[in-house]
This record gives sequence, C-alpha cells and structure tokens, in this order.
Amino acid sequence: MMTEPVNLQKTLQSFSEPWSPRIVAQLNDYDVRVAKFRGEYVWHSHLDTDELFIVVAGRLTIHLREGGVERLVTLRQGDVYVVPRGTEHKPVSDAESHILMVEPTGTLTVGDTHEEIPDDVDVTTGHHLD
Amino acid sequence: MMTEPVNLQKTLQSFSEPWSPRIVAQLNDYDVRVAKFRGEYVWHSHLDTDELFIVVAGRLTIHLREGGVERLVTLRQGDVYVVPRGTEHKPVSDAESHILMVEPTGTLTVGDTHEEIPDDVDVTTGHHLD
Repeated sequence: MMTEPVNLQKTLQSFSEPWSPRIVAQLNDYDVRVAKFRGEYVWHSHLDTDELFIVVAGRLTIHLREGGVERLVTLRQGDVYVVPRGTEHKPVSDAESHILMVEPTGTLTVGDTHEEIPDDVDVTTGHHLD
Repeated sequence: MMTEPVNLQKTLQSFSEPWSPRIVAQLNDYDVRVAKFRGEYVWHSHLDTDELFIVVAGRLTIHLREGGVERLVTLRQGDVYVVPRGTEHKPVSDAESHILMVEPTGTLTVGDTHEEIPDDVDVTTGHHLD
C-alpha cells in the first residue's frame, strides 16, 4: 500500500537503462510501470493479457503482426494504446521515449513467446523502487 | 479492440462536465478513463477494488478516512496514487484538474457506499467516446 504519491518524472530521472521498467504503483493484481524505451526491442507476445502503453514523453512506434499482416502504430505524447493479448509486437523508439505501462503483476517484459533475446536485454517483471 | 491510439489531451478537450469520466481504452476487464475534477466530490468507497489516479494536469487533493483517522494526500502533475479498496475517499480540486483513472470495467464513480449524492452528480461507470 502506498502512503504518498509517486511522481512519474522523478522516477524516470532516477534511472537510465532502457527497457527496464520500474514499478511505481500496484492496483489490485496489476502493476503500473514506467520505462525508458531506446532503440529496437524484441518481437514478443503476451498470451494471457493485453498491455497498456501511455506515452509520457517522446515518440513510440509499435510494430504489430495481426493475422499475418504487419503494420505500425505511432504514439506521441499523451497517446494511449492497448496491444491485445496474443498479438506479436515490437516497440521501437528512435530517440528515447518515456512510457507508462499497466499490466498484471508478474508479466514478463519479453512476454511468453519471443524471438532470440540479446544478452543485454533485461528480462524482468519490473523493478521495485528503492 | 482499438486500432489507433487515443490522445488524452484531445479527449479532455472534447468535453467540459466535471466528474464525468470518458473511457479511452480497455485493458482486459479494466477501463482507462479520463475526467475533469472541479470542486468537491462526495465521500465514497469501492469495496472490491483499488482505484488508480494519475494527474495529467492541475492539482488534486484526496481526503482519506483510514481506520477512523482522516488525512489528505495532494497530487500534482505526474503524480500517481492508489486508493486501497474499502477506503473512504473524497477527491477535491479547487481549480480544475485532469485525471486519468484505471479501474475494473463497471466500477461506479460514486462507489459502493457513499454519502448523499447531489442531483447534479453524474453517477456512471464511464462514458464511451463517440
């Protein structure tokens, strides 16, 4: 249980690693996470859950594979998008973007199915704040 | 399912009524809502769910009754706070604030228990965008 608010901008200033979400709050059995996206992530999908993205700063492109067809959605500051469960997706951020995500506690960053994961990718269910 | 992103600021510009949330996205069995808070709301509590507040713009004070003790938390832009299930709370915004909320689909704005509701309060589970 949180007793005081947590500030998104302050939390985002407290770390620099890309693709390494921090858990800022818990809501029932869901986590609210913030992360810095920089460069290309791996293709992956979450089989049992949708995934909510909100752009706090910057620009995010999400590549999607929907029924064998690939397309992209581009999100700018203040944009909200939900990737449906089971949909393969690959977030890309040419410049750094700051992203808020909401998903069930325990959801892995790389999903349940994914392409080969480079060694430097932080495979995590999110890091708790100190 | 959403095919294109929804912008929070644009959605907030599309209506003016206070305490009348718009549903901008659905995530599993949760809704993502935005609302304008202006003035004092009614004391209420949600018995079965926590409630997530994120301040998009402005300032929000949440009065809380925790174990018989009343206290307030003040949220500024970018602040995140979760009111735990069963906790009586009363949001107050002296000037208008713009708030993002995440809660289970079907959650009533006035909760499961509440003080007397003035006639002009919009009792709703959120309005879908046109």
